[in-house]
Amino acid sequence: MIPNRLKQLWAEGKPTLNGWCSIGNPFTAEIMAAQGYDSVTIDAQHGALDYSSALPMMQAMRASGVVPMVRVPWMEPGVIMKMLDAGAYGVICPMVNTAAQAAEFVSYMRYPPHGQRSFGPTRVSFAAGSNYAGGANDEILAFAMIETRQGLDNLAEIAATPGLDGIYIGPADLALSLAGGRLPPGFDREEPEMIENLHKILTACQDSGIRAALHCGTPEYAARAIGWGFNMTTVSGDSRLLAAAAGASVAQFRRLVSRDSVMVAQQGGAY
Amino acid sequence: MIPNRLKQLWAEGKPTLNGWCSIGNPFTAEIMAAQGYDSVTIDAQHGALDYSSALPMMQAMRASGVVPMVRVPWMEPGVIMKMLDAGAYGVICPMVNTAAQAAEFVSYMRYPPHGQRSFGPTRVSFAAGSNYAGGANDEILAFAMIETRQGLDNLAEIAATPGLDGIYIGPADLALSLAGGRLPPGFDREEPEMIENLHKILTACQDSGIRAALHCGTPEYAARAIGWGFNMTTVSGDSRLLAAAAGASVAQFRRLVSRDSVMVAQQGGAY
Amino acid sequence: MIPNRLKQLWAEGKPTLNGWCSIGNPFTAEIMAAQGYDSVTIDAQHGALDYSSALPMMQAMRASGVVPMVRVPWMEPGVIMKMLDAGAYGVICPMVNTAAQAAEFVSYMRYPPHGQRSFGPTRVSFAAGSNYAGGANDEILAFAMIETRQGLDNLAEIAATPGLDGIYIGPADLALSLAGGRLPPGFDREEPEMIENLHKILTACQDSGIRAALHCGTPEYAARAIGWGFNMTTVSGDSRLLAAAAGASVAQFRRLVSRDSVMVAQQGGAY
Amino acid sequence: MIPNRLKQLWAEGKPTLNGWCSIGNPFTAEIMAAQGYDSVTIDAQHGALDYSSALPMMQAMRASGVVPMVRVPWMEPGVIMKMLDAGAYGVICPMVNTAAQAAEFVSYMRYPPHGQRSFGPTRVSFAAGSNYAGGANDEILAFAMIETRQGLDNLAEIAATPGLDGIYIGPADLALSLAGGRLPPGFDREEPEMIENLHKILTACQDSGIRAALHCGTPEYAARAIGWGFNMTTVSGDSRLLAAAAGASVAQFRRLVSRDSVMVAQQGGAY
Amino acid sequence: MIPNRLKQLWAEGKPTLNGWCSIGNPFTAEIMAAQGYDSVTIDAQHGALDYSSALPMMQAMRASGVVPMVRVPWMEPGVIMKMLDAGAYGVICPMVNTAAQAAEFVSYMRYPPHGQRSFGPTRVSFAAGSNYAGGANDEILAFAMIETRQGLDNLAEIAATPGLDGIYIGPADLALSLAGGRLPPGFDREEPEMIENLHKILTACQDSGIRAALHCGTPEYAARAIGWGFNMTTVSGDSRLLAAAAGASVAQFRRLVSRDSVMVAQQGGAY
Amino acid sequence: MIPNRLKQLWAEGKPTLNGWCSIGNPFTAEIMAAQGYDSVTIDAQHGALDYSSALPMMQAMRASGVVPMVRVPWMEPGVIMKMLDAGAYGVICPMVNTAAQAAEFVSYMRYPPHGQRSFGPTRVSFAAGSNYAGGANDEILAFAMIETRQGLDNLAEIAATPGLDGIYIGPADLALSLAGGRLPPGFDREEPEMIENLHKILTACQDSGIRAALHCGTPEYAARAIGWGFNMTTVSGDSRLLAAAAGASVAQFRRLVSRDSVMVAQQGGAY
Repeated sequence: MIPNRLKQLWAEGKPTLNGWCSIGNPFTAEIMAAQGYDSVTIDAQHGALDYSSALPMMQAMRASGVVPMVRVPWMEPGVIMKMLDAGAYGVICPMVNTAAQAAEFVSYMRYPPHGQRSFGPTRVSFAAGSNYAGGANDEILAFAMIETRQGLDNLAEIAATPGLDGIYIGPADLALSLAGGRLPPGFDREEPEMIENLHKILTACQDSGIRAALHCGTPEYAARAIGWGFNMTTVSGDSRLLAAAAGASVAQFRRLVSRDSVMVAQQGGAY
Repeated sequence: MIPNRLKQLWAEGKPTLNGWCSIGNPFTAEIMAAQGYDSVTIDAQHGALDYSSALPMMQAMRASGVVPMVRVPWMEPGVIMKMLDAGAYGVICPMVNTAAQAAEFVSYMRYPPHGQRSFGPTRVSFAAGSNYAGGANDEILAFAMIETRQGLDNLAEIAATPGLDGIYIGPADLALSLAGGRLPPGFDREEPEMIENLHKILTACQDSGIRAALHCGTPEYAARAIGWGFNMTTVSGDSRLLAAAAGASVAQFRRLVSRDSVMVAQQGGAY
Repeated sequence: MIPNRLKQLWAEGKPTLNGWCSIGNPFTAEIMAAQGYDSVTIDAQHGALDYSSALPMMQAMRASGVVPMVRVPWMEPGVIMKMLDAGAYGVICPMVNTAAQAAEFVSYMRYPPHGQRSFGPTRVSFAAGSNYAGGANDEILAFAMIETRQGLDNLAEIAATPGLDGIYIGPADLALSLAGGRLPPGFDREEPEMIENLHKILTACQDSGIRAALHCGTPEYAARAIGWGFNMTTVSGDSRLLAAAAGASVAQFRRLVSRDSVMVAQQGGAY
Repeated sequence: MIPNRLKQLWAEGKPTLNGWCSIGNPFTAEIMAAQGYDSVTIDAQHGALDYSSALPMMQAMRASGVVPMVRVPWMEPGVIMKMLDAGAYGVICPMVNTAAQAAEFVSYMRYPPHGQRSFGPTRVSFAAGSNYAGGANDEILAFAMIETRQGLDNLAEIAATPGLDGIYIGPADLALSLAGGRLPPGFDREEPEMIENLHKILTACQDSGIRAALHCGTPEYAARAIGWGFNMTTVSGDSRLLAAAAGASVAQFRRLVSRDSVMVAQQGGAY
Repeated sequence: MIPNRLKQLWAEGKPTLNGWCSIGNPFTAEIMAAQGYDSVTIDAQHGALDYSSALPMMQAMRASGVVPMVRVPWMEPGVIMKMLDAGAYGVICPMVNTAAQAAEFVSYMRYPPHGQRSFGPTRVSFAAGSNYAGGANDEILAFAMIETRQGLDNLAEIAATPGLDGIYIGPADLALSLAGGRLPPGFDREEPEMIENLHKILTACQDSGIRAALHCGTPEYAARAIGWGFNMTTVSGDSRLLAAAAGASVAQFRRLVSRDSVMVAQQGGAY
Repeated sequence: MIPNRLKQLWAEGKPTLNGWCSIGNPFTAEIMAAQGYDSVTIDAQHGALDYSSALPMMQAMRASGVVPMVRVPWMEPGVIMKMLDAGAYGVICPMVNTAAQAAEFVSYMRYPPHGQRSFGPTRVSFAAGSNYAGGANDEILAFAMIETRQGLDNLAEIAATPGLDGIYIGPADLALSLAGGRLPPGFDREEPEMIENLHKILTACQDSGIRAALHCGTPEYAARAIGWGFNMTTVSGDSRLLAAAAGASVAQFRRLVSRDSVMVAQQGGAY
């Protein structure tokens, strides 16, 4: 089985950068896969897509060699296993609040005797090289999201779940949950209480020997997180990048071409 | 029928900015339609999409009020009329090289007695307000692309075609054709011969009382073109904007997080 | 955030009419959204569609201003939250039989501190105006379906669930469940026991200050239900309307053109 | 090869009723195919669909036994042959204005030596029974549309085209073309000049021994056309039937539930 | 309602052959349905497809008369009921490990009073003939998969579940679970312990008067299973059949055309 | 630009084997691309697919390294250029009957100054490596099909078309056309007149220094053709391979399990 490059990079002490797909389209997935990310995650939770889009997206990403991952909508075994069979080398599971939930999540990710994943790698066996059955339990990454007060309360137990590879932090939900609605959702938190919690989770991961990942809005914040010790960061995502780039292009054009002044400007138009 | 806002803006002497969709997806179309463009063109020629994608894209763009246009793959009546029935308020037709071709193109865009468009606005009548039959011949824009040596040779005759609303310039093809392969394809040309040809086309449009439009790569060049007198410019497109934005984000992260230095940096990691 | 027009109409004491989409297609959704309904519900439970169809349908309905709602297949957090992120301004949840289930359902519909909905309004934020995060908990409607004997037994407790906006009645399932299979499924019930139960549910809603909605087969029955005090009624749906209209057209043609008599009729055919 | 039931019915002197699909969806196609039409035509010209929708629609219609036909967007060999390979038992070709065009159209519909259709019935051979190669030239129907002044001028020559099975009349385009825009488009024409032209076409078909078909808006007009001698009529189509039925349902509800009076009515609401 | 041919064949003491679809495409489904299988199962668990593909596949299979079944991803009521509404005449549910799970599964398959299936056969009522409501509880097959150690331990209780029609054996998962990873996954097991377990399950089915089905890799093993008394066998599936046939064709070509010898061979090439 | 491996193999004097996709699905394309073919052609002419399927199929095939080609429905510039932009490294054009047609076809395949292809490699530039603009005219293969009497009459002139890379023979159409319907369509012709014509075409190709390719039904015939000197052969295709393999599996099962004898066999069933 083709090994998981994320695991190799982390083993070498290197941080990784994760791309994020919220657009349900194989061409945008192919574009994202070509940009130099170490991994690209298809967001089947909040992204505008489901399994029927994720499958051709993973096919379109395959040639790039980037590690394909999926964030599932919820801890449901049906969709987790379908995404694995479709080619995911990692699953990010939202809203893992207890050690029991973490253990249940891991069980869906692993073949017996380490879990209860059902065998049938119909598509992934075309993409993952030989002996998928023998390698999958080792190569596939299981990330649990801690994004609630309850999850934070059970942090150590969750991090200690056998077979769990890492914790993925969603700062928006975490802020909503911790502050009871007082803090607005969003990435790249600067509130001391939020930064403190990020470090608490990071430390718990390090204590349990698993990876810590953070969803960020900018490369600058991501670099800070790497500096703190995070192993993986995500920086924005396809739909936000597109909206921001197009919006900036329009704004720049409007700035340069002030409509009121155009008639005058044209009089002097020369090349 | 809901009037064509491009025509209104031009009548007021205002230039317009056109967005460009090469991704075949209604969510990216909805994102592009929200960015402040005056019109958004779905590229059914070089874009990674066809009619089956263009239809839901026009539906997704409808609420924004942006003017939907389509570039068709070639001067074929079947697809031109299908795109109009699907909701296009303008069609950009590639490779119009002679006045006869221009007249044929226009004939596909207009109902009798001004053309031979077949009547059946099955979907567009839900999006274009009442009396589409009465208004379509006036509101729908017909843009011919001049992008070959032959087209340039026939410039005046093409521009004088009755019912043609404007010329749209594709600099990449024009450069390939004019220079016999000597000049590479691309936008935002700086070669004097290319700029001279842009002005020749612009002048021919002005002489014939029709609009001139230019496909650009940057807001800066587009603003120059507006300054020259162009009525509409396109600046880049969704797939290029996404690739550039994602690529820049990756590069910025890599700059900030030099992998070799990470091990050291982490030792001093503090917040 | 764009306010929910259903809430405004009800606040003014006005009943509302809900359309129903069982066909998984954005064009039929756009047609339905143009007919004057106050809201249109996409039926992801019994309709021939799932999330991948519902997303472009909500995009196609957006321009009309009609309130988009979704009936989900079951009380599963993954699909409920995906439909909200895709644009639903209301969710109808089938088979809510206990107060605990009602409370769980509501928790999936609300951001903390009022629930456990995960934050990520990727597409809906393009359709719902500014500050979706601040407005969603107030504007999004949560309808629980009471359609079993057990649900009826727990009626008052369900109706009293904090955050629940209304009860939606599915007469077909209710008849099946109440009568243990004795009564056939169907809408527009005339059995006294069924009408009595409709009123019991209506009264419980009024007692709890929430809305009552009824799925009907005809405008006539819907008008009766409004007269009884129901706040919202659904009348048939797209697939039934199409089948009935096409079937009636065929029948009328066959009546007018009796095949045996055609040969004779043609002899005298004249205009 | 399964014989074409339309040909059988016509041979028995019976008129046929044709259904019409403008919605690109296999479920609506299956619904239409269940209503008792003799044939159902998928409108790939003005319908909101293309080949990618037409293929599963023909599969969904297959079980009903209804004869599947397709109206193509234009006289293009590529799409005509693709629709035949996908299962069409008849093709309606728009805008046939000359005998040469009619002959060219027929040539695309027939295998050598009667035409130049390319052999490769990849999907249709699963639906059409054994020996498709041997039967197709006889069973597949070629309908040319006469819908312009020019077509009418060449009526006799078009109708005499060897291998042509019939003329299909599109009254909307014909009215636009004949009257130079003076008459609005629409079905069920009552203008004497239009009715006279319908009869002229009918007579030319009868003189050439081919079938005459008319696109109608109501069963009543269709029955009149059958009385005149038309062999096939189409009555409205799926998108119009749906819009009309839903619109009528809404209007009836609004009539019964006058909003201003509701508050009063509810006071007396009793069952 | 059209009766379930599998039940009829079994009642006559005849074994049945089941086809298997892992490719999410209506054309491959139509091909599979034409090959003479008694039933064809769409694998929504490990197949590369979900509901959005399964719906047109069931439509494409309808004309063949083959019995359509679906394997669902997991015991989730939402998807089970959606697949039934879409046309499935049988559901195979994976990972049924206890009698309680078996009873829950059956409850989702049956209308009250025999279960809690929700009523709304929107599409299936077009495919299943009249009175689906009256016939569905009798005609629809519920197969539980026993494929774990725990399932085997609870075998008798599972088999005795009222309303369960049969046990379907997945040898790959069963081998993984029984042997704690010692045995590789795969079909057509020859290990005595595996064969003994197959017989144990078969006997339990016969004792409870329900059907036993086995997933096989070859007709030869399937025939052995029929000889043992199994009522239904599946032999391979579409994606495996395609890969094997294409691979064999390539290998045969390569054998016949040894590349090194081609230059020589061509010298003597003659016919 | 990644070089075209077919050209490399032919330059080394090696014959190539081409796979064939008639199923419009990226998973079947990925399966076919994994079987060891040198190239795989997506059949957009007779295959059950169009551009909207071909695009994700080319994406799914990319990782394999197999050369992707497309057979277009007809010599239409719109679809030819779209398939090239989507990633095709070769186009097979049906029904090329004259040298003028061959030259027109080639012109659509090449950028100026060698043709009139329009520049915009939106998707292919992600798959073809750097400098697509510089390499495309050299690497992309243009195959004209000779499959009519007229084509055969103009054989030498067609083969001599500058820029044409090869002739692809469709034996079914050729047989239909040559024999005026006397010979049935089909591959692997044994009629002396047909074999003679195959050789005539082969010789003309060799005389003009271009490649000759033959569509075959079996590896055995393909090997014969290679022996004759053909450079490329296609052997069957996905839909035929699937149907044949599934049909053979069913037949083998039925042979092994004679239904009448089953009751007896089961009595003695033992392992």
